Amino acid sequence: MKLEKLVGERFRERPSDCVVDSHALMIRGGYMKPVANGIFSSYLPLKRITRKIEQIIREEMDAIDGQEVMFPVVMPASMWQESGRYESIGKELVRFTDRSGSPLVLGMTHEEAAVQLVRDYAKSYTKYPFMIYQIQTKFRDEARPRAGLIRVREFTMKDAYSFHTSQEDLESYYSRCLAAYNRIYARVGIPQVVAVASDSGMMGGNVSHEFMLLTPIGEDSIAICRECDYRANMEAAESIVFNGTDAVSGELTAVHTPNVSTIDELCAYLNIPRDHTCKAVVYQRNSDDHYIVLFIRGDLEANETKLTNYLGYPIHPGVITAESPLCAGYIGPYGLTGKVTVLYDRSLEGGNNLVCGGNKAEYHYTGLNMARDLGPVPYHDFAKITEGGICPHCGKPAITISRGIEVGNIFQLGTKYTKSMNMTYVTQAGDLAHPIMGCYGIGVGRLAAAVCEAHHDEYGPIWPMSIAPWQVHLCAVRADDPEVKAYADKLYEALQTKGVEVIYDDRSVSAGVMFSDADLLGVPVRVVVSPRNLSQEVLEITSRDKTLSVKISIHGAPEEIKKIVSDLSQ
Amino acid sequence: MKLEKLVGERFRERPSDCVVDSHALMIRGGYMKPVANGIFSSYLPLKRITRKIEQIIREEMDAIDGQEVMFPVVMPASMWQESGRYESIGKELVRFTDRSGSPLVLGMTHEEAAVQLVRDYAKSYTKYPFMIYQIQTKFRDEARPRAGLIRVREFTMKDAYSFHTSQEDLESYYSRCLAAYNRIYARVGIPQVVAVASDSGMMGGNVSHEFMLLTPIGEDSIAICRECDYRANMEAAESIVFNGTDAVSGELTAVHTPNVSTIDELCAYLNIPRDHTCKAVVYQRNSDDHYIVLFIRGDLEANETKLTNYLGYPIHPGVITAESPLCAGYIGPYGLTGKVTVLYDRSLEGGNNLVCGGNKAEYHYTGLNMARDLGPVPYHDFAKITEGGICPHCGKPAITISRGIEVGNIFQLGTKYTKSMNMTYVTQAGDLAHPIMGCYGIGVGRLAAAVCEAHHDEYGPIWPMSIAPWQVHLCAVRADDPEVKAYADKLYEALQTKGVEVIYDDRSVSAGVMFSDADLLGVPVRVVVSPRNLSQEVLEITSRDKTLSVKISIHGAPEEIKKIVSDLSQ
Repeated sequence: MKLEKLVGERFRERPSDCVVDSHALMIRGGYMKPVANGIFSSYLPLKRITRKIEQIIREEMDAIDGQEVMFPVVMPASMWQESGRYESIGKELVRFTDRSGSPLVLGMTHEEAAVQLVRDYAKSYTKYPFMIYQIQTKFRDEARPRAGLIRVREFTMKDAYSFHTSQEDLESYYSRCLAAYNRIYARVGIPQVVAVASDSGMMGGNVSHEFMLLTPIGEDSIAICRECDYRANMEAAESIVFNGTDAVSGELTAVHTPNVSTIDELCAYLNIPRDHTCKAVVYQRNSDDHYIVLFIRGDLEANETKLTNYLGYPIHPGVITAESPLCAGYIGPYGLTGKVTVLYDRSLEGGNNLVCGGNKAEYHYTGLNMARDLGPVPYHDFAKITEGGICPHCGKPAITISRGIEVGNIFQLGTKYTKSMNMTYVTQAGDLAHPIMGCYGIGVGRLAAAVCEAHHDEYGPIWPMSIAPWQVHLCAVRADDPEVKAYADKLYEALQTKGVEVIYDDRSVSAGVMFSDADLLGVPVRVVVSPRNLSQEVLEITSRDKTLSVKISIHGAPEEIKKIVSDLSQ
Repeated sequence: MKLEKLVGERFRERPSDCVVDSHALMIRGGYMKPVANGIFSSYLPLKRITRKIEQIIREEMDAIDGQEVMFPVVMPASMWQESGRYESIGKELVRFTDRSGSPLVLGMTHEEAAVQLVRDYAKSYTKYPFMIYQIQTKFRDEARPRAGLIRVREFTMKDAYSFHTSQEDLESYYSRCLAAYNRIYARVGIPQVVAVASDSGMMGGNVSHEFMLLTPIGEDSIAICRECDYRANMEAAESIVFNGTDAVSGELTAVHTPNVSTIDELCAYLNIPRDHTCKAVVYQRNSDDHYIVLFIRGDLEANETKLTNYLGYPIHPGVITAESPLCAGYIGPYGLTGKVTVLYDRSLEGGNNLVCGGNKAEYHYTGLNMARDLGPVPYHDFAKITEGGICPHCGKPAITISRGIEVGNIFQLGTKYTKSMNMTYVTQAGDLAHPIMGCYGIGVGRLAAAVCEAHHDEYGPIWPMSIAPWQVHLCAVRADDPEVKAYADKLYEALQTKGVEVIYDDRSVSAGVMFSDADLLGVPVRVVVSPRNLSQEVLEITSRDKTLSVKISIHGAPEEIKKIVSDLSQ
């Protein structure tokens, strides 16, 4: 490929709307162009990168006995009504009707389609286990697309679905898939990706993992233990706190607290630490705005995911109106009346001498003793794990919170979909049973962006050889010099004949322009032909990551370059 | 791949809803499964076939300097409003809104997206020419999906767009692309595909070709000259007729013709040939039901495509109501009044002694002389070409009408999209100009179905080696025999090690079941291991197309089988 003919613009200025580096570099380097909010077109360099990533994924899926299939992008609503997700998923799911008025959806994930494809086939235990996967376009109407390819609305995804006759078999396959994922991340150049326990969210099921590339620009927060191998998404991480109880319990006393409605104001006013307060966090049920009040120790934050999972329905942060039974700023568990659902976080269990709202404007209670004043109420884990918190695995106060980009996820789905869509098989004993499913996803574009985040400098991406758009970037500096041009043309041909993927820059531009374009394309090996080099019968070879900088003889150069490419492919 | 684990059902019975063989065989063979009207999921065998087809297409597009890109499936309506197609295209274009209410469309073709991707880049003549293409999912809300993969709503398509600074350059590239298409059809196994001149329809532009696989189950009609190389879609084929004029013109006379309202009844009643009648064909404008009346010689049929192209707006067959200015069954050009658009086909030019409607119930005119009675009206070609008709190229009456499946099309678009979307570049002379475009499409799934139509027998598809799901189908007949199983296992491994793609059937089923499954999968080379063969130290090798049936020694069998595969790949 001649760079002169490569469609796409390259430029120096960082676009003002690009917050993360991969986004900025992919726009500056002519990798992609925005079409609409969260929707991009790709130019050739990105297409070549994603095709290589797809091939690596395909090889690893085939290696764990996956069968590549293809589900439709457009699916009938009826299939999603069967599983119940047509109603349960929000606006992320695009719904529309066809010319005959039949309701359709755009696929954002394909559990329903997977069950539909195999439920007539897999009617006997002898057909199990099996795994099917596809690499296909998906659309998810995200409220806030951001960060280039990190969070988009339209994306290409590998999604895989496995079917089993026992939980043990699923778990054994799940482990194989987890290992395959680790191989994929290693092969695309980010072996540092870690698997973390996660919440299954709308997918259903229980055990699930996310694969995270740790980076400050990530949108997920991950709890990692410094002392053991515990890692979990903050949404899923169990919060363990030491619940202190004072030796002597004070009396429950109403105190006048004018103009004090936040925990900070309360602590300052009464000169008490935050962990001696009982905070109220208010939510409302999405369907009817019914109030949910969570009481939690004042030094902790509510984990909305845990709340939603416990309640089993979607909620949103509450808005307290004049008609509501709640007294904004002064909500407390003692004497709280009205039609509200009340929940208690474990951090309050056994607590005494706490300060809480008085359910009356400008009044709080001091001396709250949970057991004495509220009786035997149930406590659950509804809190966010904290930096320096206790590790749920080893018990040491060694939790750190990092940020990460999710570059894949795997779920043990159980029978959620096979039950709701009535997929059954005949067991060896002759009974009917629902198969157990797992599902396994990787977003291709986001993975490319994650590799770029992990490997770049201010001048451009530094693509690993395995997914680089080309292997060699050949620069003919002073291509107007007939000798340079003739030699570089010959080398271009010779390298291509040897099967090396070359992008060839023979434009009449300055070396500066040439090299900054090369930096933006991020090709691993740069070969420079110039009048000075040629007069010494050498070529300059540098690697994009700057670990290699050598001059090689022009005699036998194609072989030598091919060897360098091959060495960097290891 | 072991056949035992291949997901998908195979069965003998032809499904009752399958009209064409490729549809029936692809359902019977476990290639695909319907999800909704005109929407299918693919199993592994079809996915492997389409991936091979895509790779062949990609290689041929790259060979004519194409750059692979990726446009979105979901596009903002604004882009289609720019080109004007948001309004001009009917219900085939799926329109919907996102969560914020912004109107979006599902891509059924990507001219707009192509212009959007390159219009900032290609601002100077030095960037031209170039071609970009993608292989991507498309959705077209067809009114009548049919014939399996021949006419679907969701499909994978390779669509390419070229940009030029002169018509000559476009034409030269168009020829290269036409040659590339012919290579593609040859490589996938249907070199008999012919290019025919076609109508450009909604794509705009003038010159265009369709690539047709001639087969009675095709939905297109193609005019082919027996005497020269003229080939055209009937929609586009010029109709040339010999307009006879009688030596003596009779007088225009109103005659009473009770209960005579069709041309056939008229000819019988007056005992005249059809070519002595002037027939009225009535249409209405879609937008407001305004009437259009076409007069054409009674022995010819109206070509609706030519009419639409001439009128420049969409029409539908007319319905004559009591309020309309037309007298159903008795419409004629003489004395026709009322607000209707009147058109004349060339077949009437110079005609005399014609019979036409009297614009009054139960009356016709005889003795109509076009020039004398109607004056100098304009005549155009609005007729369908006919079997045995005159070839517009060589002038001989040698036209035959065949049916065909359209397996690709290429268009010279001109500046339709670059003008409407205001894409300009600076010419060498320093002026602003709109680039000239070509576009080039191939449907991947339809191409697979077309190959199946061309190559199958009653037992299954006969896939050409280039696109077959596997190269070798290994049958271990009597796999319960330990010797057979051990040898076949070893051969399976040895062939895979040599890079041969093998589907291996080691199920404990009868040879009959094994072979009928093999027929349905249509793999080119079948290798049979059986107790009897092994006792003679041979293997049976047959080709799916029955041209080869040999026994080879088990010694050196993998090499020999690889050679056979390689020979059949030529």
